[in-house]
Amino acid sequence: MTKKVTITDLAKRANVSVTTVSQILNGKDDRFSEKTVKRVHQLQKEMGYAPDFNAQSLIRRSGHTIGVLVPNINNPFFSRFLRGIESVAMDNGYIPLIFGSNNNQKLESYYLFESIRRAADGMIIASAISDVSYIDNILNQNGIPYLLTDQAPITEGDKVDVNNYHGGEMLADYLIKKGHRDVTVVTDKQPTLNLHQRLVGFLDMFKRHQMAIPNERIIETDLTKLGGYHAAKSALATKPTAIFALNDEIAIGLYRGIHEAGLRIPDDISVVGYDDIDLAEYVTPTLTTIHQPAFEMGESAAKLILARIQDQKRAFQEVSLPIELIERNSVRDIRS
Amino acid sequence: MTKKVTITDLAKRANVSVTTVSQILNGKDDRFSEKTVKRVHQLQKEMGYAPDFNAQSLIRRSGHTIGVLVPNINNPFFSRFLRGIESVAMDNGYIPLIFGSNNNQKLESYYLFESIRRAADGMIIASAISDVSYIDNILNQNGIPYLLTDQAPITEGDKVDVNNYHGGEMLADYLIKKGHRDVTVVTDKQPTLNLHQRLVGFLDMFKRHQMAIPNERIIETDLTKLGGYHAAKSALATKPTAIFALNDEIAIGLYRGIHEAGLRIPDDISVVGYDDIDLAEYVTPTLTTIHQPAFEMGESAAKLILARIQDQKRAFQEVSLPIELIERNSVRDIRS
Repeated sequence: MTKKVTITDLAKRANVSVTTVSQILNGKDDRFSEKTVKRVHQLQKEMGYAPDFNAQSLIRRSGHTIGVLVPNINNPFFSRFLRGIESVAMDNGYIPLIFGSNNNQKLESYYLFESIRRAADGMIIASAISDVSYIDNILNQNGIPYLLTDQAPITEGDKVDVNNYHGGEMLADYLIKKGHRDVTVVTDKQPTLNLHQRLVGFLDMFKRHQMAIPNERIIETDLTKLGGYHAAKSALATKPTAIFALNDEIAIGLYRGIHEAGLRIPDDISVVGYDDIDLAEYVTPTLTTIHQPAFEMGESAAKLILARIQDQKRAFQEVSLPIELIERNSVRDIRS
Repeated sequence: MTKKVTITDLAKRANVSVTTVSQILNGKDDRFSEKTVKRVHQLQKEMGYAPDFNAQSLIRRSGHTIGVLVPNINNPFFSRFLRGIESVAMDNGYIPLIFGSNNNQKLESYYLFESIRRAADGMIIASAISDVSYIDNILNQNGIPYLLTDQAPITEGDKVDVNNYHGGEMLADYLIKKGHRDVTVVTDKQPTLNLHQRLVGFLDMFKRHQMAIPNERIIETDLTKLGGYHAAKSALATKPTAIFALNDEIAIGLYRGIHEAGLRIPDDISVVGYDDIDLAEYVTPTLTTIHQPAFEMGESAAKLILARIQDQKRAFQEVSLPIELIERNSVRDIRS
């Protein structure tokens, strides 16, 4: 039970009427003396008066809030993505309600309902583990627009597109040109659409070069550093000259496992990742990877959802963002 | 303008009265047939009906929300800390409203006000950059209890204590025993209280051994990987045998700078960090550091603030959590 500073408290201290304070704080200040206007604004800051949001949002049925669901705020890709969302949200007077589901379906469901209860105007959902149809059902019935970034929507919708298929192709092409044929892939147990496309692009490129990668060279694990670390043994058992980690977190886990096995990167084995998280430049050797514009992806997602909130009937938009192969020091050229 | 599923919609579909639905959802279901109770609960899930929070919170003046302000959600220490808060909050039907201030004072102030507007019942503030007296003023006037984790409160308050002074001492003692005398420290430009204590504990231990560390061996930078990377040159210029990085993020940045300078850790130079973020086990060599129980710190902070929300008059509590030196491979024994 908090007792907030009210507009009446402020008016009393300023020695003016509540109406005066209200008008001044709403920018209708031309009827008042400069001194009064200044005093009211100053007192607002000093006293920490914040207009009651719930009263406003009850009328408007808008919490000026965007619910954001990510699998793991510990992954630097998502912290950058969240920063992009935050920056656009703030410019528009919204705040993001950030939830990390930690791959826990119960938690995810709890957060979905809490977002609705707290009058979220829209949602951005990255890598949900629940069925898309479940999410669609819940949000649609509540008239809350949403945007999925890593999965295909049930129906047509706004989209932030980065060409994952092409990203996979680029990495495969790069490894092939460096002479790698015996390549092993470490991927997620339950890949979302974006990861799946990444994988298929990679595999297709090898196929096109008549070097199809057999199933036993595809290792499944969790999409984390620990997952990569645990997968290192099985990956090394396939005797590859190079490993493609479906994201940088896995790659960094592989680094650890490879070091512990007494092997050196890239002398004994090459590694490529995906995402270009900041750590990719801090590991030894620095990691060759695909740069994803995580911050811009967050910005675009926030812009699209805000536009959709303003006008639910507008035509669907697709924003396409470029990716780039960043060549660092984790791949050896093995053509002799 | 969202159009949420209402209790009337649900009652219509269930073919019962609004009162019936309300009573069933509030657990007063003994008057109704098992079939009706089951049907109402099932429809609630199917239709995604979530009771309107703002109506409730307007009456109770409680948003069942804890505002949480951290400097940087990109630092794994804070993501673990946030997970601890989240887990306790959820068990108590609260949600954390998470804000990363990114060392931007304007953003921090915006978030403070938004937390008040959104009826936060309490706040947990880690490493704020604003004046504590400013925060105290704003929150106190709004009757919102808060807990500072990295700074000294203005007045007495609840506390989550980890003994930073002792942590600094332990690292110094460890380095001294390994024969290090020429030690350089890389610290934050504007250290918060916890960092300051860490530093003083470290310096005091060297003084006690008649090996006081001169000022020119104390390098200031930002508390990030990039900060550590940028500080590497100046740190190496002081010709140390070991460097104490005030947190692991700085240590990882130093690793990069040290590698680029063509030196090897620990053969040419030793490094110790502080926090024991998960990465400390993934860098090469693995990093010797002080383990901070980040998850438990988050849990304790959440428990204390929830208890304070329930009873603003209860006696102040202090929870003391243990730290531990984790010896890995980044320090060389240089006693000959």
